[in-house]
Amino acid sequence: MGYTENGTNNYELPKGFQVSTVEAAIKKPGRKDLAVIFSTVPASCAGVFTTNIVKAAPVVLDIERVKTGRGQAIVVNSGNANACTGERGMEDSRALSRAASGVLNIDDSLVYVCSTGVIGAPLPIDRMLPKVREACENIGKSTLLDAARAIMTTDTFPKVVSTTINLPGFTGRLCAIAKGAGMICPNMATLLSFVLTDLSVKPAALQKALQDASQVTFNRVTVDGDMSTNDTLLVLANGTAANLPIEEGTPEYDAFASTLRETLLTLAKMIAKDGEGATKMVTIAVKGANSTEEAIRAARSVANSPLVKTAIYGNDANWGRIMASLGYSGIVFDPYMVDISFGGVLAVENGLSAGKDAESKAELGGKDVTITIDLKTGNARAQVYTCDLTQEYIKINAEYRT
Amino acid sequence: MGYTENGTNNYELPKGFQVSTVEAAIKKPGRKDLAVIFSTVPASCAGVFTTNIVKAAPVVLDIERVKTGRGQAIVVNSGNANACTGERGMEDSRALSRAASGVLNIDDSLVYVCSTGVIGAPLPIDRMLPKVREACENIGKSTLLDAARAIMTTDTFPKVVSTTINLPGFTGRLCAIAKGAGMICPNMATLLSFVLTDLSVKPAALQKALQDASQVTFNRVTVDGDMSTNDTLLVLANGTAANLPIEEGTPEYDAFASTLRETLLTLAKMIAKDGEGATKMVTIAVKGANSTEEAIRAARSVANSPLVKTAIYGNDANWGRIMASLGYSGIVFDPYMVDISFGGVLAVENGLSAGKDAESKAELGGKDVTITIDLKTGNARAQVYTCDLTQEYIKINAEYRT
Repeated sequence: MGYTENGTNNYELPKGFQVSTVEAAIKKPGRKDLAVIFSTVPASCAGVFTTNIVKAAPVVLDIERVKTGRGQAIVVNSGNANACTGERGMEDSRALSRAASGVLNIDDSLVYVCSTGVIGAPLPIDRMLPKVREACENIGKSTLLDAARAIMTTDTFPKVVSTTINLPGFTGRLCAIAKGAGMICPNMATLLSFVLTDLSVKPAALQKALQDASQVTFNRVTVDGDMSTNDTLLVLANGTAANLPIEEGTPEYDAFASTLRETLLTLAKMIAKDGEGATKMVTIAVKGANSTEEAIRAARSVANSPLVKTAIYGNDANWGRIMASLGYSGIVFDPYMVDISFGGVLAVENGLSAGKDAESKAELGGKDVTITIDLKTGNARAQVYTCDLTQEYIKINAEYRT
Repeated sequence: MGYTENGTNNYELPKGFQVSTVEAAIKKPGRKDLAVIFSTVPASCAGVFTTNIVKAAPVVLDIERVKTGRGQAIVVNSGNANACTGERGMEDSRALSRAASGVLNIDDSLVYVCSTGVIGAPLPIDRMLPKVREACENIGKSTLLDAARAIMTTDTFPKVVSTTINLPGFTGRLCAIAKGAGMICPNMATLLSFVLTDLSVKPAALQKALQDASQVTFNRVTVDGDMSTNDTLLVLANGTAANLPIEEGTPEYDAFASTLRETLLTLAKMIAKDGEGATKMVTIAVKGANSTEEAIRAARSVANSPLVKTAIYGNDANWGRIMASLGYSGIVFDPYMVDISFGGVLAVENGLSAGKDAESKAELGGKDVTITIDLKTGNARAQVYTCDLTQEYIKINAEYRT
């Protein structure tokens, strides 16, 4: 799999996909902030979306369109979320779609529109429409990495994963991009992320694989506990690899679903690592829970605690704050059964200090920290991915609109 | 009512109460960190406590003792929470109680023990026991303000309220102290706070008045969403005013309950104002909700959003973040019915910007900010008290144990 951080990977698009990016100066000039992703043939399409009751206009549009299970293009912009913009927002999203479908000469219902950025301001639609047309006219002239850059807001690095899927007689290709950074606490979906594959996958199988994968990947990320109005995860499978359409309950499905899950997990960890102001990627691993739901609930409570996150920032193995956040998570357990480890150091044994403060502190010094909590009430486990909470998070978000 | 911030008030104790403070060097030397509060006669006692499943040893002890409805002394220390300390922690709390009851010559079951500070380290009990005895021998030589100072951790000012209650033929006196600052998101109780009155109140009436008052005061405060292991609110009513014992359903009860509520509200607002690193006290007022529970839930969701709190710090009337946090609060509403005001400025009307960014920003410039949200789905309302989220919060909590 390719990571963008080292900058050495080549992100070859799956067959039949094309990308274009353009500067529409949506928030301010100086960067490409609008991307079009296009499949030369209509593709199977699946999506999961924010469960926030306040949904951005493009999310409302895409939720309606994904019911067909078909898609061919994605128009996405950063700099403005087109959320809380009323009927005007809906009209703007439809106008972006029509501008793209007109130039690309495809059915308008096959276009998905996504926006990310500031909430509550109308899109600069007059500036954007000619730019969407320009992008579509130049389709194929940009790379996936360009698109990953165009959708960034406060992200510090573009997020791209590229991999292959080997099926009997076929090698499929799967690429995905995402943006994250802040307002990250997805539920049933997340952020903006687009997955492209040249495999043929039946829409129902595609939707199921996507939902299952997002549950254990993006839905396990939290940066700040704030769920966005714009979370959208779309996958397009255009079938240009010419395999027989993948259906559920087959070895091909399992191979595809597994690769999709790995891809989303890689992106999810990138998003945690690139949380606003973060200096560390943190995995909260809970085991010994009564159920997966309880394990997730406990891990989320720890991962969202500002006191735990600031302690990690300060390299302080302050396990008392972890115990406190477990204690208000809503699950039932015996505090004097709990073990807590920082990396490989067992710092808390049966709820009491094991006297390993210095060793635990050393474990927190790295860029990738795992805190393991054993509740010893059952056999279920879950991991949640987060980051530390730093002064830089405050700085970014106190100044975001200014 | 007296506030400590201007430093001009005189905190005369209710009749029959005495205070003593002493330096026990619990976390470090250099300040008085242990207080004893004493009633010369046994008093009615009521208490509410943290609902965190991880309860500190003194909380476990006090929950058991308050069932009697009687109390005469409170031993309280800062610098160490005596939480997650196992059987040793319980023994230490009992030893502190016995040290006090022995010198004060009262029944040991009438002593309440409270601790606040770092979680997970045992108390320096050998250093503390002689200091508790010393404090009890010097009972009456310190003031209530001294006690308020002794229980501070990261608080920047002591919190004292002093008031009178006029009943037919009697004037009672009521004083209260509290500490707050961090790990503040109480449920059914909060922080450390002690209320002393010379009125006679029957234990059942005292408990009801306390529970009712804490629901609409301390339980509406959140600094960081982290619920403590040590929240304890105790009231002692020693009856030295010689009134007939107050019972529920009387005008005297209503007068007492109302004063208690006002007192706790004043302390709750002080705690929000003195939230760790805070530069502003923020009131989130939700109206037009279907029920009080929904109003509280919506207000809490806004008050706990790191993105809302950092925007307020940055004087950014970023109402989109408020809409997003309402949207994931779990209550059902129509985003395009919602009005949002910053102070007196209606910034959002029916879910859309009213074009008042500059005026809204000006409202956020003060030290006391009220954000009013009208959901227009019903007639219920509630207020939650919080503060902004600043770099200083991170600094305090990244360095707290070091």
